[in-house]
Amino acid sequence: MQSLLSDGSPSMEVDAVSILKSITPSLEPSKHKGQAGKIAVVGGCREYTGAPYFSAISALKTGADLSHVFCTKDAAPVIKGYSPELIVHPILEESYSVRDEDKKSILAKVIEEVDKWMERFDCVIIGPGLGRDPFLLDCVSNIMKHARQFNVPMVIDGDGLFLVTNSLDLISGYPLAVLTPNVNEYKRLVQKVLQCEVNDQDGTQQLLSLAKGIGGATILRKGGSDFISNGETVHEVSSFGSPRRCGGQGDILSGSVAVFVSWARQLAGEPSMSATVMGCIAGSILLRKAASHAFESNRRSMLTTDIIQHLGTSLEELCPVLVSR
Amino acid sequence: MQSLLSDGSPSMEVDAVSILKSITPSLEPSKHKGQAGKIAVVGGCREYTGAPYFSAISALKTGADLSHVFCTKDAAPVIKGYSPELIVHPILEESYSVRDEDKKSILAKVIEEVDKWMERFDCVIIGPGLGRDPFLLDCVSNIMKHARQFNVPMVIDGDGLFLVTNSLDLISGYPLAVLTPNVNEYKRLVQKVLQCEVNDQDGTQQLLSLAKGIGGATILRKGGSDFISNGETVHEVSSFGSPRRCGGQGDILSGSVAVFVSWARQLAGEPSMSATVMGCIAGSILLRKAASHAFESNRRSMLTTDIIQHLGTSLEELCPVLVSR
Repeated sequence: MQSLLSDGSPSMEVDAVSILKSITPSLEPSKHKGQAGKIAVVGGCREYTGAPYFSAISALKTGADLSHVFCTKDAAPVIKGYSPELIVHPILEESYSVRDEDKKSILAKVIEEVDKWMERFDCVIIGPGLGRDPFLLDCVSNIMKHARQFNVPMVIDGDGLFLVTNSLDLISGYPLAVLTPNVNEYKRLVQKVLQCEVNDQDGTQQLLSLAKGIGGATILRKGGSDFISNGETVHEVSSFGSPRRCGGQGDILSGSVAVFVSWARQLAGEPSMSATVMGCIAGSILLRKAASHAFESNRRSMLTTDIIQHLGTSLEELCPVLVSR
Repeated sequence: MQSLLSDGSPSMEVDAVSILKSITPSLEPSKHKGQAGKIAVVGGCREYTGAPYFSAISALKTGADLSHVFCTKDAAPVIKGYSPELIVHPILEESYSVRDEDKKSILAKVIEEVDKWMERFDCVIIGPGLGRDPFLLDCVSNIMKHARQFNVPMVIDGDGLFLVTNSLDLISGYPLAVLTPNVNEYKRLVQKVLQCEVNDQDGTQQLLSLAKGIGGATILRKGGSDFISNGETVHEVSSFGSPRRCGGQGDILSGSVAVFVSWARQLAGEPSMSATVMGCIAGSILLRKAASHAFESNRRSMLTTDIIQHLGTSLEELCPVLVSR
């Protein structure tokens, strides 16, 4: 699938559609609820409720069977209100509602609640609308440690990236971690891990070094083209999406990447690419396709909800359903 | 662009469509989130939740990337519930929930919260659904002072106009302030600033005097025709909108004016018109176009949400997207 660029280097562009097709499971009447994926989003606080909703509903619309949200008590009724399709757990707390002397017991309770569920999840998304409250982030660090113990893949975005950039050990050396930084989040990661500035002249090499530096986590660097690396190879997805940059598109990506990663892990045999890399490539091409449709319909007024509405038709275009009866 | 009226005076009608086109940025895949505008609405209290939603969602549908709302704790979950696209900060308080001895510390906290964000905003809208609670208005006065310190443009409507009419120093001499009074709000402004009654025989001159009297703030006088002045010139936008006068249309206007003002400020060179005047003209023509479409479809039942639904197609008619790839 590789071709030569004008400078003689191999193109990193991948056949993203083929990869998406190869990991998307067939729909069979014999399957039962949960087999197409159980996803959880950890995010949603007093300030942010849209982001976790976008992520969780996108996981469902990509094809997951169940989508959970673990958020603060304030955020829960609002997120529930966006959609009856989501299972929303109001278990997180922010500093303003917690006395110092209660922190330890509340943290223990949060972990106990999450642990009831953790083992069943096929992928956990950390960060959409998480905010930056110190106590909340402390709880989420602990949730991440437990996810890791249970070998659950994690997709980390938004304030989750703020958290791991400051606590790299949370994901360092964990091959089931996926980081999805935008331009600013990528900059902070490069500064922290490589202790230098972003160098776009040698962007591929720097991305490889960054992924290696984090010990094999997969990085999806979002931008005009998306670049994906786990420290071994770099793949590019460049098909045109939309020129609108309204907030929330990254949440759709985290939701669909989570589903595709969990599907890719179920592939039989020894795939030539890691499940996390394949999941990123599939999520990237799906978002781009849906965004292009949404933009065609809504032009300058396109919002994130418009893209979500196009996930279904886009998936069907990329990978038509063949129902085996 | 000027022609003579029957009485020999020059027409003030502007080519609003050309102005809208000249300030609307191209959509380029190389841009990233936030570059098309980050807008904030300060408004929303126990009584009013629709107005700040209309304003904030209209900013997004005009093409902003991010839209925030700063409102009271009561109003926040409701406004969040209208749309997951908005970032809603439940930070304001009304007198009924605050003890006298706590007012000072609560005011300080409100300002601290807003200041975390203020510098990032390209325009702040003051007033949609603000209400008239004295303590709340005191907090908002302080927010306005900080916006001014950071040189952030302000669009002031509704109860924000009640506030500034009683405290003219909040905007006096601030060329980045835009006031969008309706007939009653205009009357109160004229009485307060010029200490006389509205005189429609000499409406243009009076509008000029009013804008000068406030020290160069831009006034968009809403009516059958909209008249716009910053004390130097008066421009008119008279294209037909809708004969329905349902509440909320002014909120759409404030949202889109905020976006257009922030775009106009990014124009290179030395435009012949001020950014605030161009922003008002563009917002006025967009609302009129969308209202005319909404009225065509919904007739006597036309509501504000119907107009919002037509913002996208109206923008596309006025200024078709040319995507540069």
